[in-house]
Amino acid sequence: MQKPSNVRGTRDFDPVTLSKRNYVINIIKEVFSSFGFEQIETPAMENLSVLMGKYGDEGDQLLFKILNSGDFLKNTSIQDYENGVKQMLSKISDKGLRYDLTVPFARYVTMHRNEINFPFKRFQIQPVWRADRPQKGRYREFYQCDADVVGTKSLVCETEIIIMLNQIFSKLGLEDYAIKINNRKILSGISEKINAKGKEVDFCVALDKLDKIGPLKVKEELKERGFSDENISLAEPIFEFDFLNETVFEDLKKWLSDIPIAQEGIQELEEIWSNINQYGIKDAKIYFDPTLARGLSYYTGCIFEVKVNNVSIGSISGGGRYDNLTEGFGLADMPGVGISLGIDRVYDVLEELNLFPENQLHSSTLLIATFDKASSNKGLQLLHEFRKNGIKTELYPDNSKFKKQFDYANKKGIPFVCIIGPEELKSNIFGLKNMISGEQGQYSISEIINIINE
Amino acid sequence: MQKPSNVRGTRDFDPVTLSKRNYVINIIKEVFSSFGFEQIETPAMENLSVLMGKYGDEGDQLLFKILNSGDFLKNTSIQDYENGVKQMLSKISDKGLRYDLTVPFARYVTMHRNEINFPFKRFQIQPVWRADRPQKGRYREFYQCDADVVGTKSLVCETEIIIMLNQIFSKLGLEDYAIKINNRKILSGISEKINAKGKEVDFCVALDKLDKIGPLKVKEELKERGFSDENISLAEPIFEFDFLNETVFEDLKKWLSDIPIAQEGIQELEEIWSNINQYGIKDAKIYFDPTLARGLSYYTGCIFEVKVNNVSIGSISGGGRYDNLTEGFGLADMPGVGISLGIDRVYDVLEELNLFPENQLHSSTLLIATFDKASSNKGLQLLHEFRKNGIKTELYPDNSKFKKQFDYANKKGIPFVCIIGPEELKSNIFGLKNMISGEQGQYSISEIINIINE
Repeated sequence: MQKPSNVRGTRDFDPVTLSKRNYVINIIKEVFSSFGFEQIETPAMENLSVLMGKYGDEGDQLLFKILNSGDFLKNTSIQDYENGVKQMLSKISDKGLRYDLTVPFARYVTMHRNEINFPFKRFQIQPVWRADRPQKGRYREFYQCDADVVGTKSLVCETEIIIMLNQIFSKLGLEDYAIKINNRKILSGISEKINAKGKEVDFCVALDKLDKIGPLKVKEELKERGFSDENISLAEPIFEFDFLNETVFEDLKKWLSDIPIAQEGIQELEEIWSNINQYGIKDAKIYFDPTLARGLSYYTGCIFEVKVNNVSIGSISGGGRYDNLTEGFGLADMPGVGISLGIDRVYDVLEELNLFPENQLHSSTLLIATFDKASSNKGLQLLHEFRKNGIKTELYPDNSKFKKQFDYANKKGIPFVCIIGPEELKSNIFGLKNMISGEQGQYSISEIINIINE
Repeated sequence: MQKPSNVRGTRDFDPVTLSKRNYVINIIKEVFSSFGFEQIETPAMENLSVLMGKYGDEGDQLLFKILNSGDFLKNTSIQDYENGVKQMLSKISDKGLRYDLTVPFARYVTMHRNEINFPFKRFQIQPVWRADRPQKGRYREFYQCDADVVGTKSLVCETEIIIMLNQIFSKLGLEDYAIKINNRKILSGISEKINAKGKEVDFCVALDKLDKIGPLKVKEELKERGFSDENISLAEPIFEFDFLNETVFEDLKKWLSDIPIAQEGIQELEEIWSNINQYGIKDAKIYFDPTLARGLSYYTGCIFEVKVNNVSIGSISGGGRYDNLTEGFGLADMPGVGISLGIDRVYDVLEELNLFPENQLHSSTLLIATFDKASSNKGLQLLHEFRKNGIKTELYPDNSKFKKQFDYANKKGIPFVCIIGPEELKSNIFGLKNMISGEQGQYSISEIINIINE
């Protein structure tokens, strides 16, 4: 018989790992919910007509497709087979696994628009699947965690998202991180200003290295990326700005005074800064980063990214504003802003920084160890008694050697073992072993309850 | 553009429905965990080599199969195509979606046996997928919720499962239900006694109607189902037993005195009854039901089923003891006992009996309504102030008409609205509307905090 295995790129979650992941998820849920976000869930399977064409050609390739049930060949011919994969696919599969939470959410909003209470603040925490080549830290099944507000253009939403991120990270014990912000409108404006429209991404990639390699090398890289001498010379002022200072907004405003879209973008950022000051949060950890360029094709306004400093995995969250979530489904005018948190990455960061509180497993507090049928019977009574007194108790089901029962408690992190041996059965005084200190004594039931509840 | 839709047989969960489902799941998780069960999760996708052959031919048909990534035709030939679905399937798909939680758990135990702390009490709450014909109340994606103890034959586990079910239902507010128990060994014994070995299921189906149609008609039905006159006459004593009385165990013991397997089964039930008495639970609602026959092929000892009385959907839970969970994966000697709760069914029962507590949604308590930029700015300050005082508060993001903002609060079940109108901005005294009573007054911030926190 072949040894069973997991599908490549997928994982089992054992109790310890899962309880830590649930710790992360519960904090996120709690904060989302305290900001008025409501949870929804969508099915794992979506029609391919919903999914295809939304993630580009590469994304279409990475969708897991599900074979039609029953005789999946019934609508095919030898001709289809000979025409190859694409034609066969369209005839044997009409469903796929969701690739992210955004497209299913767009479908949800489109289908349920008449029941939804707009502005709709939703969150969603579910696994997604991608037929990526598995590698360290990249899985084919992983959780996404998205929060979006749709149906409003108000920058109060961007503000709330920043404050919300701040609160999540503070509850998780993270301190050394940066919420980086940019605005796609500023990027458009800059590319317009330097006569290189549409080349924002390339520009950002090069500019991002300014810190490390200095202006000269950045200009060389821009050249390599196809920017002309004219483009680069027009971009000159940007090398002089101090991005870490709020004066950068004034500098940009002056430089881009003739570019309306850029002015709009700068004003939006200023309003967000002002909103955060109004709210009165200290140490919001937000930083303007004009090199931030994520997901340009989708986002149209502010964009965010959260980076944790001094860890191997940096980016743990990202998002931004979009003009119309539901365009792909023919529903117009559905602006919104959203954020996505990488649960696996947050997990890895907390692990690396040793930030998980001990004892996430919430194991039992007490194990009752028995040695024969009579002591098991007594054990059932005690089990009920201890539970009634609020002590999470287990009765070891077999009359194994005490050593084995102690091992079980140890491995499961149960701190106390109550022993019902032959003497104890007669005396109604029971052994109690503290598995952490190793101390052992003889006590009545009420004494045991007191010791443990202390 | 085509209107988007869900995959047939799958559902979206809106915030209200999801919060009610989470209410059910959270109670179950809490009780499982308080009995020392630990949660695990396994991936949605399993290798078809793991899934196929475990659910019978019909089950194999109902598995959702996933197309291999990339050029899925690359290992196929025209010959394969012409040979039809079965041969093609083996070459274009090697993964499927999990069909239940038991087979993935068996794989998990087999793969992780060296790390697991036996006896292993695990629970698992995840969706499963079946390519069933969708119909009312039957979905192609639905949650299962399983708890099992593996690695022990101790009847303490059956006892704990019964007590656990009892506690779950009591926390859910369910009262009028029955935990029905039988033992597969008794069924084997009876079929042996009446010379009809292997016909347990048919026998149970007929006997199950005894209450409604009486012994004569049951015997007729037995005849129709192929039982001989000899079989039926040998079965005569069973029609005299009072199954609702504990004396039934003595009656059965006498009648089946020459059938060792039956004696074993009866003793097991007696021990469970005795264990429950030892534990001292009142009103355990367990009933011996010799007509209970669920999943005979898999179970080998005690079997359970929970039925709620006076509702349209009766059975909400079932399970039993098995000799070897991991037989299909070549790992011997892994006895256990498990229970499965139907989350959707529990949901429907609570809905039908009106047992959901109000306000599962945990909405915000307060909405701040604003009318212009200045009042929004003030709103941001108040938002922080109210939150610091433990009030779940939202700021309506746009300066819409107050009516629209009140509507939003109403639909979302937010009980209070704080109004920052032009007067309020000057006076630092704010409007507070109670959305339930309709009352409205003018208060300072600290007064509002007091009113809401009361």
